[in-house]
Amino acid sequence: MKKYIEIYEYYRRLITNGQMKYGDKMPSIRSATTIFSVSKTTIENAYFELQADGYIISSPKSGYYVSNYTPIEATQSNADPDAQHILYDLKSGGADKNSFDISLWQRYIKSALRQQDRLLSYSDNQGEADLREALAKYIREKRNVTASPDRIVVGAGVQNLLGILCSLIDDRDTVSFPDKSFVQGISVFKDYGFTVKTRDKNAKIIYVSPSHMTSYGDVMKTKRRLELVKHSEINHSLVIEDDYDNDFLYQSKPTPSLFALSGGGNVVYMGSFSNVLIPGIRISFMVLTKELAEKYKKNIDKYAQAASKTEQIALCQYIRDGHINTQTRKIRRLYTAKTKQFYDEINRQMKNVNCKISDNGLQVKIEVPPFDTTRLTDNGIAVNIKEVTQDYAKLVIVPSAIDSSDIPHIVSLLKKSIE
Amino acid sequence: MKKYIEIYEYYRRLITNGQMKYGDKMPSIRSATTIFSVSKTTIENAYFELQADGYIISSPKSGYYVSNYTPIEATQSNADPDAQHILYDLKSGGADKNSFDISLWQRYIKSALRQQDRLLSYSDNQGEADLREALAKYIREKRNVTASPDRIVVGAGVQNLLGILCSLIDDRDTVSFPDKSFVQGISVFKDYGFTVKTRDKNAKIIYVSPSHMTSYGDVMKTKRRLELVKHSEINHSLVIEDDYDNDFLYQSKPTPSLFALSGGGNVVYMGSFSNVLIPGIRISFMVLTKELAEKYKKNIDKYAQAASKTEQIALCQYIRDGHINTQTRKIRRLYTAKTKQFYDEINRQMKNVNCKISDNGLQVKIEVPPFDTTRLTDNGIAVNIKEVTQDYAKLVIVPSAIDSSDIPHIVSLLKKSIE
Repeated sequence: MKKYIEIYEYYRRLITNGQMKYGDKMPSIRSATTIFSVSKTTIENAYFELQADGYIISSPKSGYYVSNYTPIEATQSNADPDAQHILYDLKSGGADKNSFDISLWQRYIKSALRQQDRLLSYSDNQGEADLREALAKYIREKRNVTASPDRIVVGAGVQNLLGILCSLIDDRDTVSFPDKSFVQGISVFKDYGFTVKTRDKNAKIIYVSPSHMTSYGDVMKTKRRLELVKHSEINHSLVIEDDYDNDFLYQSKPTPSLFALSGGGNVVYMGSFSNVLIPGIRISFMVLTKELAEKYKKNIDKYAQAASKTEQIALCQYIRDGHINTQTRKIRRLYTAKTKQFYDEINRQMKNVNCKISDNGLQVKIEVPPFDTTRLTDNGIAVNIKEVTQDYAKLVIVPSAIDSSDIPHIVSLLKKSIE
Repeated sequence: MKKYIEIYEYYRRLITNGQMKYGDKMPSIRSATTIFSVSKTTIENAYFELQADGYIISSPKSGYYVSNYTPIEATQSNADPDAQHILYDLKSGGADKNSFDISLWQRYIKSALRQQDRLLSYSDNQGEADLREALAKYIREKRNVTASPDRIVVGAGVQNLLGILCSLIDDRDTVSFPDKSFVQGISVFKDYGFTVKTRDKNAKIIYVSPSHMTSYGDVMKTKRRLELVKHSEINHSLVIEDDYDNDFLYQSKPTPSLFALSGGGNVVYMGSFSNVLIPGIRISFMVLTKELAEKYKKNIDKYAQAASKTEQIALCQYIRDGHINTQTRKIRRLYTAKTKQFYDEINRQMKNVNCKISDNGLQVKIEVPPFDTTRLTDNGIAVNIKEVTQDYAKLVIVPSAIDSSDIPHIVSLLKKSIE
C-alpha cells in the first residue's frame, strides 16, 4: 500500500473513532515528515486526501484541524424513518461491493478527464456520438437490437428518458403499466397528461420489462412476447421495452427482445448499466422508432443532455474495451451463486416454507404461513412483501447487495421473524 | 512531465499525424521498454492510456495495433451544418481552456471515486445531503439566499430542475419568459401544459434571469427588482429567479437577489456552476419555496436524481475547500480583461461603430450600419445578431471561449465582414 494512503488511513481511523476531535490540531507538515519518516510530498498527499474527504480543514497560516464534518456513510437512505434499523437490504437490489472493480473505472474516468478540449463544451444534446456508436454495436451483438447510433438517445436515468419520450408524443392518450410499482415512470406519464392504466392491452402505449416481468423475476416467454408485438401492430400502439436489468445477460439462451421480434417500427428499446456497473453511475439510453427519431432530430435544440459528459466518455471506452462483457460474466456468477446459497440456507434452516428461485436466477421467492411482517423490520431486514392473505405470505428476496458470508445469519433472522 | 505521458504523447502524435496508420502494429511491451529505456510499468501505463483514449486496440495473444477510431475533437457540435466553418465562437459562451484547473478537479473526482461505499447505492433523490449543505452555506454567503439544505434540490442542469418544478405545480396556468430565446426552458413548461407568454407581468409564474437580463448582459436594477417582487406578492404569482450565470460574482457590489428582496415565500432561486467550472460538469440546484419544498418531500419517491453521484461528492468538497471562490475571481479577471481587449481592439480597427461593454462586463455590444450578416459565417465567425433593420445592425460579442491572442485577428475578420 502506498505510504501516503497508510498515513491517510492512520488519521482517518483516529478521527472516525473519536480519538481526535473537532478542532484538534494536526501535526504541521514539517513535523509529520519527521514523525513518519517520509517525504514532504507524501504528507501533503495524505493531508490533501484527508481534506478532500472532509476529515480535516485547512486554516491559512495556521495549519490543519480536524473538521466538524461527518462524512456520509452508505447506510443512510432516502428519508426512510426505518432506515436506521435496516442492517440487511434484501429489497432494493443494490450492488455488492465485491462486484465492481472501481479502480478500473477510475482509470477510465481519469482518461476522460484528460480530454480537456471535449470537456470545455456541453455534451451533444443526444449524447456523445462515440458513446452512441459503442451502444449501437453493443445492443446489436447482445440483444439483436439493430439501429443506427442516430436513433439512440442517451440520458441520465430512465425517468429523464421517459420525459423526452413523452414530449415527443403529441397524442397524450393511454399508457399501460404491468402494475403500480414503477412510481417514477408512472409519474412522468401522469405529469405529461397521459391516462395511466394497469395491464390494459388496448392502451396506446404499453410499458413492459419483459426480462423482469415482476419483482418475482419472472421472464416473459416468447409466445407471450409475440402476442404482445402482434397486438401492438394491429392496434397501432407503441411498446416501450425497458431492459433495465439486463437480465438477458444472465441467461445462456435469452428470450428474444421485443424490438427484434417486432422487426417493424413500434418498439422503443430502453437500457442502462446501473446493475452491471454501480448505481452511482447514472447513464441510460433509449432506441427510438424511426419516426420518433426523426421528430427528435427536428426538435433536438429543445433537449438538454443531462448525463455527465465525463462519464459518457469513460463509459464509451469501457464498453469498447470489452469490460461490460467481463463485468457481466462476473456479476452473473456472483449473484446466481448468492441466490443459490440463500435458497439452500433457507431450505436448511426453515421448515414449512415453499421456496423457489426466479426465472432469471436472481431472486428467491418464498411462501410461508401468514405472520406479522413488522417483525422483519424489527430484526433489521428489508425485503419485498408481495402479498399477505389469511392463508399465506409471499416474499421476494433480492440478495445482490448482501455479503455472502452474512447469509446464514440473515436466514436465521428471517426464521426468527417468520416462525 | 511523467515518462509514461511523454511516451503516450509520442505515439499519439504519430497516429494523429497519420505517420502510423490503422492496423500498424505497436512495439511489444518488452521491445518498448528497450526502445525507451523505461520500466515495463511505464510502457503499460502509456499503452493503457492510448487504448483508453481510443488510439490503439489490444488483440489478445497478438499485441497492440493502431485503431480505426478517430477520437472526437471539440470542434464538432450539435448537428449544425455551419459548424464545420466556424473558427471563432463569439456566441455560445463556452469556456476558455485557460480558465479551469482541470487537474485540481481531477483530484476531487479521484477522491470521490475512492468513497466506494457511497457509490454502491443510488444518490439521495434530492441530491447528496452534504452537497446541499455546502450549497446552502455558499448561497447564503454569496447571494443572501437563506434557506435550509432541505429546501435545495440538486439536478443535472436547469431543464431537469424545471421539469421537477412544473410537476410540483398543480395549476398549469400561465408562465411568462422575458423573450423566446430560452428554448429549453420554454419547451418544458409547454410540455407540462402551461400557457407560455412573453413579458406578461400578470402571468402566474414569472421566469427571470435578473443578473443576465438579455443577451446584452444588462442587469435588472434594484428598483425594477423591487417592483417585480411587490407585484408578484400582490398577484400571488411565483417568481423563478435563474442566476445561472452567477454574474453577481463579477460585480463588486452585486444587485440583491430577488429571493433576498422578497423575504417571503414566492421566489424559487436557481443556480449552477457551468460557467465557473466547465460545461462538461452538469450540476445545478434550485431553492424551493417552503410550500413547494413540503410538497416535494411528500412526493420525493417520484423523483429520480439525475446528477452524477461522483460529481456531486467531488463538487461538495471543491466548494468546501473554497475553490469556487478562487475559480470565480480567476474567471472574472480573465473574462473582463478579454472583454476590455475586444472593446479596445474594435475601437482601434473599426470605424463607424458604436461600441459598448455590457453592464455585467462580459459582453461587447456593437451597433454598425446594416450589412450582409452571412459574411460573418463566411469568415468563420459565430456571433449573436440581435437586430437588423434598414438603419443599423446590433451584434453582441461573447468573448469567453476565445483565446486572447486571437482577438486582433478576429476583429480584423469582423471588420472584413461588416465594412
